[in-house]
Amino acid sequence: MTATSEKSIFISPPPFDKTSAYVKLQKFAEMPFDLTANGALTASRIEAMRADAQGFSYLYGFERIDQETLKTLILLAQERKVCEQMEAMQKGKIANFIEGFESEKRAVLHTACRDIFDSPPLSEEERAARELAKAEIEKLKQFIYKLNSKKQFSEMIFVGIGGSELGPRALFEALSFLHHKDRRVHFISNIDPDAVASVLQKADLSKSCVVVVSKSGTTIETETNEQFLRREFFRKGLIPKDHFIAITTPKSKMDSSEQYLERFYIWDWVGGRFSATSMVGALLLAFSIGMDEFLNLLRGAHEMDKVALRQDPIQNLPLLSALMAVWNRNFLKLPTIAIIPYSQLLHRFPAHLQQCEMESNGKSIDRLGRPVPFDTGPIIWGEPGTNGQHSFYQLIHQGTTPVALEVIGFLEPQGNLDFEWKGTTSQEKLLSNLFAQSIALATGQENGNPNKRFPGNRPSSLLLTKKLNAYSLGALLSFYEHKVAFQGFLWGINSFDQEGVQLGKVLADRLMKTFAAQRQNKPSEPFALGDALLKISQEIGGSR
Amino acid sequence: MTATSEKSIFISPPPFDKTSAYVKLQKFAEMPFDLTANGALTASRIEAMRADAQGFSYLYGFERIDQETLKTLILLAQERKVCEQMEAMQKGKIANFIEGFESEKRAVLHTACRDIFDSPPLSEEERAARELAKAEIEKLKQFIYKLNSKKQFSEMIFVGIGGSELGPRALFEALSFLHHKDRRVHFISNIDPDAVASVLQKADLSKSCVVVVSKSGTTIETETNEQFLRREFFRKGLIPKDHFIAITTPKSKMDSSEQYLERFYIWDWVGGRFSATSMVGALLLAFSIGMDEFLNLLRGAHEMDKVALRQDPIQNLPLLSALMAVWNRNFLKLPTIAIIPYSQLLHRFPAHLQQCEMESNGKSIDRLGRPVPFDTGPIIWGEPGTNGQHSFYQLIHQGTTPVALEVIGFLEPQGNLDFEWKGTTSQEKLLSNLFAQSIALATGQENGNPNKRFPGNRPSSLLLTKKLNAYSLGALLSFYEHKVAFQGFLWGINSFDQEGVQLGKVLADRLMKTFAAQRQNKPSEPFALGDALLKISQEIGGSR
Repeated sequence: MTATSEKSIFISPPPFDKTSAYVKLQKFAEMPFDLTANGALTASRIEAMRADAQGFSYLYGFERIDQETLKTLILLAQERKVCEQMEAMQKGKIANFIEGFESEKRAVLHTACRDIFDSPPLSEEERAARELAKAEIEKLKQFIYKLNSKKQFSEMIFVGIGGSELGPRALFEALSFLHHKDRRVHFISNIDPDAVASVLQKADLSKSCVVVVSKSGTTIETETNEQFLRREFFRKGLIPKDHFIAITTPKSKMDSSEQYLERFYIWDWVGGRFSATSMVGALLLAFSIGMDEFLNLLRGAHEMDKVALRQDPIQNLPLLSALMAVWNRNFLKLPTIAIIPYSQLLHRFPAHLQQCEMESNGKSIDRLGRPVPFDTGPIIWGEPGTNGQHSFYQLIHQGTTPVALEVIGFLEPQGNLDFEWKGTTSQEKLLSNLFAQSIALATGQENGNPNKRFPGNRPSSLLLTKKLNAYSLGALLSFYEHKVAFQGFLWGINSFDQEGVQLGKVLADRLMKTFAAQRQNKPSEPFALGDALLKISQEIGGSR
Repeated sequence: MTATSEKSIFISPPPFDKTSAYVKLQKFAEMPFDLTANGALTASRIEAMRADAQGFSYLYGFERIDQETLKTLILLAQERKVCEQMEAMQKGKIANFIEGFESEKRAVLHTACRDIFDSPPLSEEERAARELAKAEIEKLKQFIYKLNSKKQFSEMIFVGIGGSELGPRALFEALSFLHHKDRRVHFISNIDPDAVASVLQKADLSKSCVVVVSKSGTTIETETNEQFLRREFFRKGLIPKDHFIAITTPKSKMDSSEQYLERFYIWDWVGGRFSATSMVGALLLAFSIGMDEFLNLLRGAHEMDKVALRQDPIQNLPLLSALMAVWNRNFLKLPTIAIIPYSQLLHRFPAHLQQCEMESNGKSIDRLGRPVPFDTGPIIWGEPGTNGQHSFYQLIHQGTTPVALEVIGFLEPQGNLDFEWKGTTSQEKLLSNLFAQSIALATGQENGNPNKRFPGNRPSSLLLTKKLNAYSLGALLSFYEHKVAFQGFLWGINSFDQEGVQLGKVLADRLMKTFAAQRQNKPSEPFALGDALLKISQEIGGSR
């Protein structure tokens, strides 16, 4: 597909730190809203600082903002024209570029992968993209139908790394109670040979399909692990071609009908970390939760895509969330965000968001290649609650570096099984803890014993919905994808490339050659390893 | 057991920021060693900045230090008398206290749990503790022997949260190739009812023992999940007492022969986050890897405990590591540390260290209850390499906030299965990537295209050994436990309590009561949830 080169909307607004809102926000940040003050955290505040969409409520009353700050954050969004940038992105304008230097120059159209329902396409580019996406979904339907009727595979080995693993896996784990009871899935991502060896201990290869996911078809980990598995299939007398399925770009090295039972496509306008709703996640999910539930997930994502297009910032949940993140990062100077889903099933969701945000916004130059004089993407980390409360919450409450929290919660369990003990159900206990932490972090507590003193004023936002199911999970995924994009739009950086991963790849290639050369006297002691390291460090030291 | 109240060694040294080293280090930090300079990263540098012990090599030549900085860091350790503090801790002097205020006043003797081999006890307190620990190990041996001969249980459901789950689970996952083939383990930690429901879908209760771990016997998550499981055992006509095993403090609510098949003990001198080598982790590990391998793990931990007692800082690996962490945190002002094990089997190890470090050192007051005027524990996060390279390394290379890396690597795979592809094995590829990243982060790279520019000077340290096995894993665990303690000794804070988790618990209890009261009109929509929240926020707002 072709995308127009209408990039001006991404370049023309005044830089982040040159907006009129920026200066005002700096001023407000000198004395931000004090959540510990008597009467600061009121019912009306919480109610006023709330936005709803698609069954979700986003509560930002626990952030250190007042109405004046909120207004100015919205002004910031307007000055930076982020709603226009979002629309241009969803229309398929080239959004992945750096002006004036060699760069990827691509559209960013993961939204087209789920724009298969009601809405009229926003543009020619979008229409073309969704037709491609629809065709793959049709192919997938056929494939799943055959697979169900032939009962050919009861296991899947999913091989992919980074964006080709984190998102799909997070979604897979999150829908555990929807999993087909007679099907199992194994994941291999790491080049560590123990990763393959572990799966070989558990999988029945004769009943397994192997889904190999690499956009480029040349990811070294994925290529090696695929070949590793092919060797094991051969050894067992199985024909790999009857088991291996490729998910890749048309005409990549992996686009071969001789090597694969089936091929599904993605395109350069779907970034790896935004690819969970493309074929990258589709086959895995359709295999484990079925085609209908997978479509529900797409539906949820699509509906949230539309929320991200809302022109009124106060109704646009992903944008609001991005504004809070920017307030905490650039004005309150908090270096990290902890994502805390109060749901055990979301245990890999923070790892997905870690990639989605840090690979997108861990940048230092703007759209014109100039170093930015302000902070961009924060460090993202997190574990499910209540577990985190018994781990790192000590630091969040009483450490010297405040952490911004993004809390995700559900009213009902997915498993439809609950237990009442001492007057409350487990789900009620879970939710009580969720709310209690936001309140405790905000208000703090004085105490004559300094060790029992809580300073408070530690911000959090809450994203709540009724139940974690395919639909709400799709919406949640989309919420965060757009939050990430909005932050990039606010900062004026290109959130859609990842040049920062290249240098390490180049050096690793050189080191591999050294290892290969040293193979005769294979090192087997740390000292010998040290030796190898020394040779390399000399080489690199001299080569800079 | 009794511990003397000889606390002076923890209080008497000059405060961290009042040492002569502190001022010098601040000066050095204005122009730290430049790893990007031509010839800065040399073979002799890497070789010189290396310490060995118990098969481990610790390489700190990729840190932004020169010999002068190193000397001054060592001076800091001497001024703060951290070796003397470590010895006092391992002797069983009271190390968990705040002077002048109500506090726990306990010894910190997790080292006694594995001090069952060669060395003579350092003190009466230690002797007493190790006798208790030894008796439990003997009890465990008998129990495992009976369990093996009766073949009573082929599954274990492990119920615990925080320190009673993260460490044991990280160790369990790390030794996957040593697992007994016919035994399975399930974990339940979260109060989320989906956590129990997920396990109920997989476990055969009739063949399962349930190990309930709670030091106090009153952890709400663990108590609730235990009762939830007891109900399910009843429903299946099984007698819980024949299946449930308690790991708790003597005389806790859980110390009941009527409720449990067996009880194993821990004591107040074993902190939760340091309890993985006590009975908290012992039964799980002995069940899954066998008693002999579990003893190998204790042996490795014990040997590293002795390394932590080395008086010469330059030979004391955990201390060196603590000094690098403090340099990066307090002088180079890096707010986070990423722990990157280049081993898929260590995938839960960063989560364990996250607790171990952040709960220990996420504090704001010193031993005398005074607010500290400097930063303490950083935020700890991480995922295995090479996976992280396809996720958050973008930010580490090119983001605006540098991250300190702690890299862990092994020469050989645990699974004894490797695969050669394009001239190198997977293990060699893994190691090439490990080294390449440290080099790339240190040296960076200039480029005419600003998007392909890598600033470099991003520090890392490397901890390497031959193979991940029970012995080296024990040593690795101990290395980090002592690194955490040394950092606390340097800062002069109490790393061994966790008052910061209390406020949230109190508030959660109040909220639970509100939920219970509201049960008649059970809320089922986000709006109703919002309502509940409002009531509570009013209550809290008024009560501060």
